Amino acid sequence: MAHEINISRLLKNLETLSRFGRTDHGITRPSFSPADIAARKWLLQEMTSAGIAARTDAAGNIFGRIGPEGPAVVAGSHLDTVPNGGMFDGALGVMAALECVRTIRENEIPVRWPIEVAAFSDEEGAFVSFLGSRAVTGALKTDELADTATNRPTSLREAMNAAGLSLEAVHNAHRAPEEIIAYLELHIEQGPQLEARKINIGLVEAIRGIATFKLIFSGEAVHAGTAPVRLRKDALVGAATLICQLSEYCHSLTGGVATAGEVIVSPGASNVVPSRAEVVLDIRFSSQQVYEGMVADIKRMGREIAARKGLGFEIRRTSFDPPANAAPRILDLLADTAKEMGYPYMIMDSGAAHDAQIMSTITEMGMIFIPSIGGKSHCPEEKTHWADVKTGADLLLAGLILLANE
Amino acid sequence: MAHEINISRLLKNLETLSRFGRTDHGITRPSFSPADIAARKWLLQEMTSAGIAARTDAAGNIFGRIGPEGPAVVAGSHLDTVPNGGMFDGALGVMAALECVRTIRENEIPVRWPIEVAAFSDEEGAFVSFLGSRAVTGALKTDELADTATNRPTSLREAMNAAGLSLEAVHNAHRAPEEIIAYLELHIEQGPQLEARKINIGLVEAIRGIATFKLIFSGEAVHAGTAPVRLRKDALVGAATLICQLSEYCHSLTGGVATAGEVIVSPGASNVVPSRAEVVLDIRFSSQQVYEGMVADIKRMGREIAARKGLGFEIRRTSFDPPANAAPRILDLLADTAKEMGYPYMIMDSGAAHDAQIMSTITEMGMIFIPSIGGKSHCPEEKTHWADVKTGADLLLAGLILLANE
Repeated sequence: MAHEINISRLLKNLETLSRFGRTDHGITRPSFSPADIAARKWLLQEMTSAGIAARTDAAGNIFGRIGPEGPAVVAGSHLDTVPNGGMFDGALGVMAALECVRTIRENEIPVRWPIEVAAFSDEEGAFVSFLGSRAVTGALKTDELADTATNRPTSLREAMNAAGLSLEAVHNAHRAPEEIIAYLELHIEQGPQLEARKINIGLVEAIRGIATFKLIFSGEAVHAGTAPVRLRKDALVGAATLICQLSEYCHSLTGGVATAGEVIVSPGASNVVPSRAEVVLDIRFSSQQVYEGMVADIKRMGREIAARKGLGFEIRRTSFDPPANAAPRILDLLADTAKEMGYPYMIMDSGAAHDAQIMSTITEMGMIFIPSIGGKSHCPEEKTHWADVKTGADLLLAGLILLANE
Repeated sequence: MAHEINISRLLKNLETLSRFGRTDHGITRPSFSPADIAARKWLLQEMTSAGIAARTDAAGNIFGRIGPEGPAVVAGSHLDTVPNGGMFDGALGVMAALECVRTIRENEIPVRWPIEVAAFSDEEGAFVSFLGSRAVTGALKTDELADTATNRPTSLREAMNAAGLSLEAVHNAHRAPEEIIAYLELHIEQGPQLEARKINIGLVEAIRGIATFKLIFSGEAVHAGTAPVRLRKDALVGAATLICQLSEYCHSLTGGVATAGEVIVSPGASNVVPSRAEVVLDIRFSSQQVYEGMVADIKRMGREIAARKGLGFEIRRTSFDPPANAAPRILDLLADTAKEMGYPYMIMDSGAAHDAQIMSTITEMGMIFIPSIGGKSHCPEEKTHWADVKTGADLLLAGLILLANE
């Protein structure tokens, strides 16, 4: 009979973690914020008191390790949330991995290789998307760390200092591929597919690529009461036109989606025609070809709008993570295990980005999804059924035991 | 022969004042900011050293007074600027009034009534539009002072405390209409009309009304990578659609204009579909009828967009100042004086709002415009010819002397 995690302890830990950063509008726990720092402290204590060797690396990633010396099987996710987010995104993967490792220790389940619980920094990109996992894989570029004070109350440097870390040392978090055998991540689906099909387990075949851009329109700051409308060069009208066009464009697009999540207007006073409007754009894509097509289309739209309205237009890519595939042998291993355990599953793509896709550049990766109620995520209403948490965590446990004994 | 102001001293004072809050992107001196507090201190010293009785009232307005007891003729404007503004808007009116009062004192020009220089707080509405002049006239409502910490680094309370003032005491700035005989304001036009007609003096017949609104779209925060486009309720797409429609709408509008100067997006993360977008809208109108038509049209547009996109829509008026007329006898007095002095002038409307329109609710008001080069204002390129500064200030001086001897 398969081993089982302690569901009541896992639920208790998810509840406890959800208190860090909770407000009336959900959970706001960006990386290196006071709430995140408090959550990290708690996690380190939990690990230590459970007899797990815990450490924080130079990028603020937390690793908890059990088992012998040698290359490790790693399972985890991230502690940070989007602003006004929910209690499962990231948190589930870390808490479930912790529960699996505890179960293995308590039941003295033999492992040939060590197992590590990972909690990666800043997956949601409050400062730099996937800061933690990208520091581990060596994908983080130094110039990405430079432009992180804009439009934020705290710079990355200040925030890391508050967490007892140093911006200069981030690259020391790099780990050699030989240190890691495989990476597993349990996550909520964050979309409506599993629920719609009444299937409790999704096994991820591929994760869509994600890139972020700043789309910048520049015009002329003139007086809102006196400047004749026909002479205005209103940067916000340019940005708004592009946002509307992009929304239409996405309806006809396959294999990709674009979302404008923020607009930063300068000077940003009610009585001044905006001279600058910066749209923060997120795009997702199933292939490099889809990516290139989308970027070409967005550039063309932006330039046409700017030309028509007498504005300047500029597009800057601020991050890029290519699509990633799960290792076929891990996908097979998880599928076989799910079948043995009697769990119906479906093979699917992930529209959301995950630390797993970063880890896939240095190790073999596999991901397990459980359903999101109403498909909702990145919001206070983000929920999943407790029974599915148990199913997903038990499958993660089985996968870890198999991989750690190969 | 008419009296003349000391133009070199006036220019020197304009230059000195422009250093408070100067950055590489123009002048940023919002009311009660450190730059504004330093500018106030300097102005009080200038007044005192020139033998002018200076005081700061409970709303942070500065008044400098000369002459006998009794009701005063007041001239002035405001010290504060928009973000990245220029060196003339507001500053010219205060510095010119100061120069006039100095000229009257130095030349011992007899006056029957006292003359006051006024520098009103927060004309530009960093916290509350026309805070200072509206406190003086009694038009400031207590509930307007409540909602002023949103989306700003400092609340009005904190900012006023830093300036040695108290939010609770603001209403003490109220003055009885009997204390003030008339109010004059010299200002740059902030538009292109005088320059286009090569006329150096504009005499304002009416100031357009100004109202500000928050237009709030509410949708659903869902994951930017997983939420199907057809199921999204994207509040920012709603706001962007309205901004585009309003821009088109203004092209066909007479007697009014609407400007979206800021958009505040929640949660404001690149990877979350926005659940809330708040457009800060400024509208100007030549009559109550135009105002009512515009508001009805904007409401209809917002509701239609919201219904089409499955969003919530709400409109909140955050300020309202009706159109204001100059006192016909002051307009005549300034026109006659300009004619005598040999200055061509034109009678015109002001598209921009001014403290003068607030003061018109308790006293007789007159405004003098001088040309803005290229019609530009509320930007670092805000400029006017020094010769026009001299002409405008000399006319202000003549007007003050006449009114103070009636």
